[in-house]
Amino acid sequence: MNLKLTILGCHSATPRVNAHPTAQYLEINNRHFLIDCGEGTQRQMRKHKVGFSKINHIFISHLHGDHFFGLIGLISTLGILNRERDLHIYGPEGIEEVTNLQLKVSKTYSNFSLVFHELSSKESELIYEDEKVFVRTIPLNHRVYTNGFLFTEKENQRNLNMKAIAKLDEIETCDYRSLKIGKDFVLSNGKTIPNSELTFDPPKPKTYAFCSDTSYKPDIVPIIENADLLYHEATFLSDREDLAKKTKHSTARQAAEIAKMADVKSLVIGHYSSRYKELESFREEARIIFDPVHLAEEGKEFIV
Amino acid sequence: MNLKLTILGCHSATPRVNAHPTAQYLEINNRHFLIDCGEGTQRQMRKHKVGFSKINHIFISHLHGDHFFGLIGLISTLGILNRERDLHIYGPEGIEEVTNLQLKVSKTYSNFSLVFHELSSKESELIYEDEKVFVRTIPLNHRVYTNGFLFTEKENQRNLNMKAIAKLDEIETCDYRSLKIGKDFVLSNGKTIPNSELTFDPPKPKTYAFCSDTSYKPDIVPIIENADLLYHEATFLSDREDLAKKTKHSTARQAAEIAKMADVKSLVIGHYSSRYKELESFREEARIIFDPVHLAEEGKEFIV
Repeated sequence: MNLKLTILGCHSATPRVNAHPTAQYLEINNRHFLIDCGEGTQRQMRKHKVGFSKINHIFISHLHGDHFFGLIGLISTLGILNRERDLHIYGPEGIEEVTNLQLKVSKTYSNFSLVFHELSSKESELIYEDEKVFVRTIPLNHRVYTNGFLFTEKENQRNLNMKAIAKLDEIETCDYRSLKIGKDFVLSNGKTIPNSELTFDPPKPKTYAFCSDTSYKPDIVPIIENADLLYHEATFLSDREDLAKKTKHSTARQAAEIAKMADVKSLVIGHYSSRYKELESFREEARIIFDPVHLAEEGKEFIV
Repeated sequence: MNLKLTILGCHSATPRVNAHPTAQYLEINNRHFLIDCGEGTQRQMRKHKVGFSKINHIFISHLHGDHFFGLIGLISTLGILNRERDLHIYGPEGIEEVTNLQLKVSKTYSNFSLVFHELSSKESELIYEDEKVFVRTIPLNHRVYTNGFLFTEKENQRNLNMKAIAKLDEIETCDYRSLKIGKDFVLSNGKTIPNSELTFDPPKPKTYAFCSDTSYKPDIVPIIENADLLYHEATFLSDREDLAKKTKHSTARQAAEIAKMADVKSLVIGHYSSRYKELESFREEARIIFDPVHLAEEGKEFIV
């Protein structure tokens, strides 16, 4: 399993008893990311058994309350839990000032450092990279400065063909590293064995694109093209496309059109307006344009 | 019914699935107050059917997260619900700056005004008064500047003795007002009927004292004396009195001692540390000193 997305909250605007604002937990290539953090996210993490300590990087799409009002509580709790490792926070300009002021007035002192990465570019940019994963922004169009995030695994190493290796009787464990990165092997008699005979193709790197909140914005298509999994907000159905336009949100149909144009493998929609009492209509509307489409629901996991 | 207290959250420090931070809803003489507002309070209000629109005054004891991190979300939701009436917020210095900065970065604009009443006095002071109720601070001793709050009904008007009034055949509806405020009635023949023959004693004004968070502080006793209902924090049992002292909290025994000295009618304890897996021990420890003592529990109502 390379990529697992857990929905912690998927509704818009105001938290209700069984409708939590946006928060997602992403496991990708052994990295653990939190995406958005509406009020109550730390409770949702406990409910769905998401470990607090594994998360070192939190990505906040924009500074509307339903996407970040839970951040200060989570940070405060990490302090109480005696966290010591740095916590990196990526989000729009202003996130550092507002977080620090809350920590100051509540006299919250902890043993770990907050490292803020404030975003202001209107172009897609690389904001995180390690040896396994990188993250780029997806500039969105909302009432405030907003980014989606594209999480991409780095090219995996080749898998060893142990049967073929054993047959040669000349390859040692210390040679594995160069085989995994694609090098051919030269035998003691000078003969070269092509790498393809000693290894299998690695699994294709996986990508997850998170796009919330945004109006219909086809120019994100080149950034998210061929993603394995796309989450795209669908606050309204097409019956209220006027309201979607006015509030800079999307309809289920528009989310599906983006998925289709980007030729992604699978679409998840969410951020439902509270005016809709049932969610199946969102799936039905989207499915006319694109398939497969899934509804984000609290606790649901998507595994690629 | 003159006074009803609803517990929305009663645990300390970090929110957990079934352990919510401090928030209480008080109905007293047809006034509706919210006391403290930890993360998730708006969800707890919905769960326990507390109407958002009735609340015009919110009292925040101190700026530790478990007592105010839910305030910004509630304010934001009131805006989404198209509130128009002023909302008054009473709390320590700093509460206005931190609230306004959060509203600014989230570009939250609403149709109602926030009226802040920042508190800084170390003496008990009158902070709210109308024709039915008044509220005084109860200076507490915690790691940050903290107040409890004493909610007191104003003297009720006398109740009319309709049988006695009917017998006289000379008292009109327009005379009721002066009878209710205790005036005698002079008949047309000049004879004075004492008010006590025409009215009954009104119910005694009720008082509710909220004391959280604080170390053991006997000098609050004169302020809360004879309260009908006292909520006093009891974060620890006596086995960790050392920790209570260090963190400026109280034990169940200390809460009961305050209740006993103040000769209150009934004690509610809460703000339990998460180190305790069951709560009955808190009640048992307190009951040795004072009776009746009740455990604050989510959704519980106390009616005086």
